[in-house]
Amino acid sequence: MKGSEETVLTGDRPTGRLHLGHFLGSIENRLKLEKSVSGKLFYMVADVQALTDNAADPGKVRDAVREVALDNLACGMDPKKTTMFIQSQVQEIAELTIFFLNLVTVSRLKQNPTVKTEIAQKGFGENVPAGFLMYPVSQAADILAFKANRVPVGDDQLPVLEQTNEIVDSFNRLYGKTFERIKPVVSKNPRLVGIDGKGKMSKSLNNAIYLADDEDDVEEKVMKMYTDPKHVHASDPGKVEGNVVFTYLDVFDPNKKELEALKRQYKKGGLGDVVLKKRLAAILNEFLDPIRERRRELAGEQHLVMDILEEGTRKARQTAREVLREVKTKMKINYFQ
Amino acid sequence: MKGSEETVLTGDRPTGRLHLGHFLGSIENRLKLEKSVSGKLFYMVADVQALTDNAADPGKVRDAVREVALDNLACGMDPKKTTMFIQSQVQEIAELTIFFLNLVTVSRLKQNPTVKTEIAQKGFGENVPAGFLMYPVSQAADILAFKANRVPVGDDQLPVLEQTNEIVDSFNRLYGKTFERIKPVVSKNPRLVGIDGKGKMSKSLNNAIYLADDEDDVEEKVMKMYTDPKHVHASDPGKVEGNVVFTYLDVFDPNKKELEALKRQYKKGGLGDVVLKKRLAAILNEFLDPIRERRRELAGEQHLVMDILEEGTRKARQTAREVLREVKTKMKINYFQ
Repeated sequence: MKGSEETVLTGDRPTGRLHLGHFLGSIENRLKLEKSVSGKLFYMVADVQALTDNAADPGKVRDAVREVALDNLACGMDPKKTTMFIQSQVQEIAELTIFFLNLVTVSRLKQNPTVKTEIAQKGFGENVPAGFLMYPVSQAADILAFKANRVPVGDDQLPVLEQTNEIVDSFNRLYGKTFERIKPVVSKNPRLVGIDGKGKMSKSLNNAIYLADDEDDVEEKVMKMYTDPKHVHASDPGKVEGNVVFTYLDVFDPNKKELEALKRQYKKGGLGDVVLKKRLAAILNEFLDPIRERRRELAGEQHLVMDILEEGTRKARQTAREVLREVKTKMKINYFQ
Repeated sequence: MKGSEETVLTGDRPTGRLHLGHFLGSIENRLKLEKSVSGKLFYMVADVQALTDNAADPGKVRDAVREVALDNLACGMDPKKTTMFIQSQVQEIAELTIFFLNLVTVSRLKQNPTVKTEIAQKGFGENVPAGFLMYPVSQAADILAFKANRVPVGDDQLPVLEQTNEIVDSFNRLYGKTFERIKPVVSKNPRLVGIDGKGKMSKSLNNAIYLADDEDDVEEKVMKMYTDPKHVHASDPGKVEGNVVFTYLDVFDPNKKELEALKRQYKKGGLGDVVLKKRLAAILNEFLDPIRERRRELAGEQHLVMDILEEGTRKARQTAREVLREVKTKMKINYFQ
């Protein structure tokens, strides 16, 4: 379905540099959407959302704003096609959040499985910051401030989008048809496991390969990757399932035929981890090389990334301002027009 | 203490016309502050707050916005001295609310005695709208968006201002000294009882005398007032305590000497309710006459009230914008300056 009426919103939380997991989970999809969607595309750096659980560390969030935008640009995001903006600079999102908060009950927010899981993970309990509990409402405002109707997400985020659609229904019922229900686009890529094989790749688990890592970093991290602990000598038979090196090769190795042969050999015995790891390191570095190259170009122009975000934010606000004008008219709080 | 550094914020929730209880509880105090305070005075029509529990009735809120502003102007508020503005038109308040939501836990909001009582009164339980639970945070933003440091309130609202001061402390601790703790100014006037003697005057109890009531309305309502049910004949001895007519005379009768004599006579017997009620009706109508006169003048100029609110909102936003600029700089989310 290629409709000119499609509007896509994607975004990153700026809490650190992006890694290969982010590339597979979202950036790759964004780049595809840039090619296939003829409607509007918005990319948001969600600094306000990052502050909901990093209120005490604004410096980290600030630094990461430029980093995550740069990561996306380095991967090939085209700011002429995708309007790249910073959440905190679009006041209309805050306004819309406040209006939406009246349409959602506290018990409903607490029952949201995504929020529930995250509150447990972060050990908040009842001491959850109000802003964190509300974040599905804030996310609804992010989306609807641009009347986005297509939102790529991981499947763990589906309940948050359900909340958005409930808000769409409530708002339309109370104030008249204004928003369309949104369509989540669930990423088909499975979550990339971290180099330690223990869980998904993440900064906090210290098991990530960053898009900005240099060749030596990548080689060093691949050499540390979890394989099969029982595969001690090259001649031993080894396990392919759960072997992180093979997991990565499955994703990144362009030569699937050779890869199948290597798997057979590994299972039988006679293929050492170091040989495999060298292959993977080379493949990853080849994958990252054009990203590094583009990063160098962008970094060469001192203000370029922030200039792109400033221009994108100006454009995003135009759209959000129009939507808020309609919202306020529907809510009858358009006094001075 | 007459300091030029004082900034006062007051406001009304626009859910209906204002009554004598509002006059004694807040308007009278505002008019005094206009005379005594040399700093800035802000008066806010809190439409966003009114929507937290009237989301389904935006028309009522909209109509009441002009009404409550008109009520204050009719009582003598001077828009040259007091900046009169509409909450929803100052986007900066919404922004500040969102930032403050990260500094307060959900359990803290639930423990707030004011919120707790109101949630019980309205029968919300766990189905309280998120916006309603958050309203102490929203109120902190109302106040701090103008760096107000003096806020007149009823004593039932003190816990809400405590919440504001906790936010002041947290914000200053995390992001550096930005706000001053605020000083509540508790109204000395006791809450005016309704004409039925059953509870405080309020629209929902249908026991109010409105500032916009005409002479006949007032006379009719005074005639219905609760007195002493055992005082059947004029010659019977009657009770003064709990007798609503005397409660009102205590407040509004300028001739306290005559009033004391009437009380003695009433207790002894020989003074009828109708005589007393006629006295009260005449006194109330005399009190309301200049308010009615000014209301007629204001109503004569079709757009005057909304023009005053528009100009006030423009001025209020200038202040709020400066405060938000400082806030965002402190929070390090001032990217494009």
